[in-house]
Amino acid sequence: MIFDLIIIGAGPAGIAASLYAARQNLNFLIISKDIGGQANLIPDIETYLGYHYISGSEIVKRFQEHLKDYNVRFVYSEAKKLEKQKDCFVVRTNITSFRSRVLVIATGRVNKKLKVKGESEYANKGLSYCAACDGPLFKNKTVAVIGGGKSGLFSTLYMLKIAKKIYLIEENKELTGPEFLIPRILKHEKVEILTNTKVLEVIGNKIVNKLKVKQGNKIKTLPLEGIFVEIGYEPNLPFLNGLVKINNKKEIVVDKECSTSMQGIFAAGDVTDINEKQVIVAAGEGAKALMSALTYLAKYKK
Amino acid sequence: MIFDLIIIGAGPAGIAASLYAARQNLNFLIISKDIGGQANLIPDIETYLGYHYISGSEIVKRFQEHLKDYNVRFVYSEAKKLEKQKDCFVVRTNITSFRSRVLVIATGRVNKKLKVKGESEYANKGLSYCAACDGPLFKNKTVAVIGGGKSGLFSTLYMLKIAKKIYLIEENKELTGPEFLIPRILKHEKVEILTNTKVLEVIGNKIVNKLKVKQGNKIKTLPLEGIFVEIGYEPNLPFLNGLVKINNKKEIVVDKECSTSMQGIFAAGDVTDINEKQVIVAAGEGAKALMSALTYLAKYKK
Repeated sequence: MIFDLIIIGAGPAGIAASLYAARQNLNFLIISKDIGGQANLIPDIETYLGYHYISGSEIVKRFQEHLKDYNVRFVYSEAKKLEKQKDCFVVRTNITSFRSRVLVIATGRVNKKLKVKGESEYANKGLSYCAACDGPLFKNKTVAVIGGGKSGLFSTLYMLKIAKKIYLIEENKELTGPEFLIPRILKHEKVEILTNTKVLEVIGNKIVNKLKVKQGNKIKTLPLEGIFVEIGYEPNLPFLNGLVKINNKKEIVVDKECSTSMQGIFAAGDVTDINEKQVIVAAGEGAKALMSALTYLAKYKK
Repeated sequence: MIFDLIIIGAGPAGIAASLYAARQNLNFLIISKDIGGQANLIPDIETYLGYHYISGSEIVKRFQEHLKDYNVRFVYSEAKKLEKQKDCFVVRTNITSFRSRVLVIATGRVNKKLKVKGESEYANKGLSYCAACDGPLFKNKTVAVIGGGKSGLFSTLYMLKIAKKIYLIEENKELTGPEFLIPRILKHEKVEILTNTKVLEVIGNKIVNKLKVKQGNKIKTLPLEGIFVEIGYEPNLPFLNGLVKINNKKEIVVDKECSTSMQGIFAAGDVTDINEKQVIVAAGEGAKALMSALTYLAKYKK
């Protein structure tokens, strides 16, 4: 069987696309390993027009409820590889594969990895990519926040209320996050700032207990119990297989109607090269992508 | 005084832009003659992600409440003319004028006019551009719906429950609206369909009492008490003064980050050439336009 449409990803963009698809007479499905994606991790959203002061997980719940009013086929899985065949695209997951005339890619973005020894071994064993989610597990412990940019600084401020001591580690010679946050961190006795410092290895014994770093030419081993990797995001696109054009940040290049370089593949939300990584923007882009996909399908079916 | 930013229009795009602007340290204002614009007239919105089954006027209320949490300067007026000066833009209203470094245009769209004799004279005196708003005033009366496209057909169906008789008037040889609506109208005894028919004149005596039309070569005068003009929309841009590029539908041409052909002028929502005229899309575009404006301002201020 060939579907009319497959939506890959179910963050705000994917859910908005699904909502518009569900209202059409289409044979379609959504493939995603979760619902809401990164939006679930936002502590407070103040800019989703119509909802002031709502948490990310709460707004995702509302989105989910909205979608539940329609009959939508959901496959809880991850796209592993895309292929183009003569008359359709193939989406391969670990278990099976699906064929579709049209794709909407809305897989969002994921936390950047350190790519050092021990990182994958100790993920969720003391190493986390989300201080706001996992921070409370490290009450009165010594932790490191890796990254002196915006998310690193926010995570450090957040952990001040929880941890005993915080190493704030930044590769550059200075912290790069918003200036107004820096004084509050600089003067705080709980924080030890290590700039000009690279992470070399995550070390542990079943759980994390050390972090090996290199400051200038000096190698240091920091005793600690928790590590928060907060070095930014990258598009979640391990499956793309070269099918569509990406930019130097590896984001899918789209036009203003969410078309990609490949006819029949549309993309929306944080996975694309639209600058604004915002929930309300992703929702609007998801709606656009779906309607562009519909126009394409209508021509295709003629 | 020169403002950092002026947002023109306060529909979903303008409100979203204002929300993002209000969270910045900016000297800005919004100019609009109303809040919500066309969105107020939508009977049911099912596609604003997070709100299922809500009326247009209700969702506008939520938007307005969201914005009230911030301190925003609102000028209830209409932009009448834009001008470019060396270091700023000038927005002229009937009463005064405002100067700004950057503009975000989000004035949406308005109903297309018939451009015939008597139209402006009898507007709101039996002639309406919104059956869903004014229909109930014509209980058991004879009315005409002008336009056999989507909005004309929906308006006709809506008026079936209210009016005594409905003339459905279409210039083309066939109705052009969605096919699934046509059978319900064709077979209904209350409806008299006049295709291949042009409107020549709206006639009345203080209030509408006749409509002069030409069907083929034959001129007819229809006795009636109400007229609904439902021939689509056009961008609301009487003030543009040639400053930015428009397309053949007179929509402002934008790129995917909501820039126009003029540096420092951004645009969002139904007034632009983005195909999807949807509330959720307009909100997303408004957020994008504002963030693009911020980036521009940041460079400008350096």
